[in-house]
Amino acid sequence: MTMMTNGRVDNGVNVEALIGAREALTAAPEAAKFRWRARCRWMNGTHSRSTVDGFFGLGEDQRHRTEFSFEADHPEVFAAEDNGATPVEYVLVGLGACLTAGIAAVAQHRKIQLRSVQATLEGAMDLQGILGIDSDVRNGFDGIKVTYRIDADASPEEIRALVAQSQKRSAVYDIVTNPTNVTVEVDG
Amino acid sequence: MTMMTNGRVDNGVNVEALIGAREALTAAPEAAKFRWRARCRWMNGTHSRSTVDGFFGLGEDQRHRTEFSFEADHPEVFAAEDNGATPVEYVLVGLGACLTAGIAAVAQHRKIQLRSVQATLEGAMDLQGILGIDSDVRNGFDGIKVTYRIDADASPEEIRALVAQSQKRSAVYDIVTNPTNVTVEVDG
Repeated sequence: MTMMTNGRVDNGVNVEALIGAREALTAAPEAAKFRWRARCRWMNGTHSRSTVDGFFGLGEDQRHRTEFSFEADHPEVFAAEDNGATPVEYVLVGLGACLTAGIAAVAQHRKIQLRSVQATLEGAMDLQGILGIDSDVRNGFDGIKVTYRIDADASPEEIRALVAQSQKRSAVYDIVTNPTNVTVEVDG
Repeated sequence: MTMMTNGRVDNGVNVEALIGAREALTAAPEAAKFRWRARCRWMNGTHSRSTVDGFFGLGEDQRHRTEFSFEADHPEVFAAEDNGATPVEYVLVGLGACLTAGIAAVAQHRKIQLRSVQATLEGAMDLQGILGIDSDVRNGFDGIKVTYRIDADASPEEIRALVAQSQKRSAVYDIVTNPTNVTVEVDG
């Protein structure tokens, strides 16, 4: 039986720096206005390659340590080449990653040592929407179910509270559960 | 000046197969019920690794040709290690990929030859939301702007109509612009 002392809890999250950032941005709210970016280039068919290399924040352009590149495609059952994950699977990846990062940050703040955190995500979709068969069927997910398995030095109640707090502060959870305005323009 | 004949338009999308699928799924709507899946595993700090390897559709489990793996993390300005794109950037990738695949499919259906399609996506976010500084500020994007540059054998009006039709049928555009229910559970 191991008892972790508070000082030894280490989930790899620098909570002191985050608290410092919150104080700094409370004093300078303009610096809190971020703009996240991606570029997408059509390859062939339904295959595209997207890149992410930087964003705007803290009043200036910021670079990622390296450029990240992502292939997306439709699967073979849609008569496509399956050269990458489908676009809707990228949304599930973003949602799982956002909630999981939040769980680690909240656990660090609450001095709970995590040992393992795993999530499975499933989004149901009736293709009668995107195929235009039934206009009453939406194009997107009917709903998403996320199931966590978490091993941590905490009670089941504390673990459920961690997950709930992560939902409350999650950017992607908010984007998916609430409407977000999207404008699409053609240049030139 | 090149004139493409209809028979030579090739954007790499098998429109005949998609029309066949629409007919088949109209006759057997149960087969149109898909379930898309991802798994997410916490690595350390805000770093996670997600995998996508299969989904349910056409009445049975389907496998991707290969497993796709994605690293996500927070950037260095959040005192994190920047081991991957941020979760919200994954949402932009999914949105760009979905709209771009739709443009290619609609162009093929309308016998418009595409030469190049590029999109830039930008999502504005005020971090006062996720940092809990101001509860009136949402956690997610204030809004997303997508800008396309498209070179195709078509008039500007036809190109704008392509993009509009892709929005109308896009799963990720629907997910982002409309609310989707997300349930989060802890197993065990």
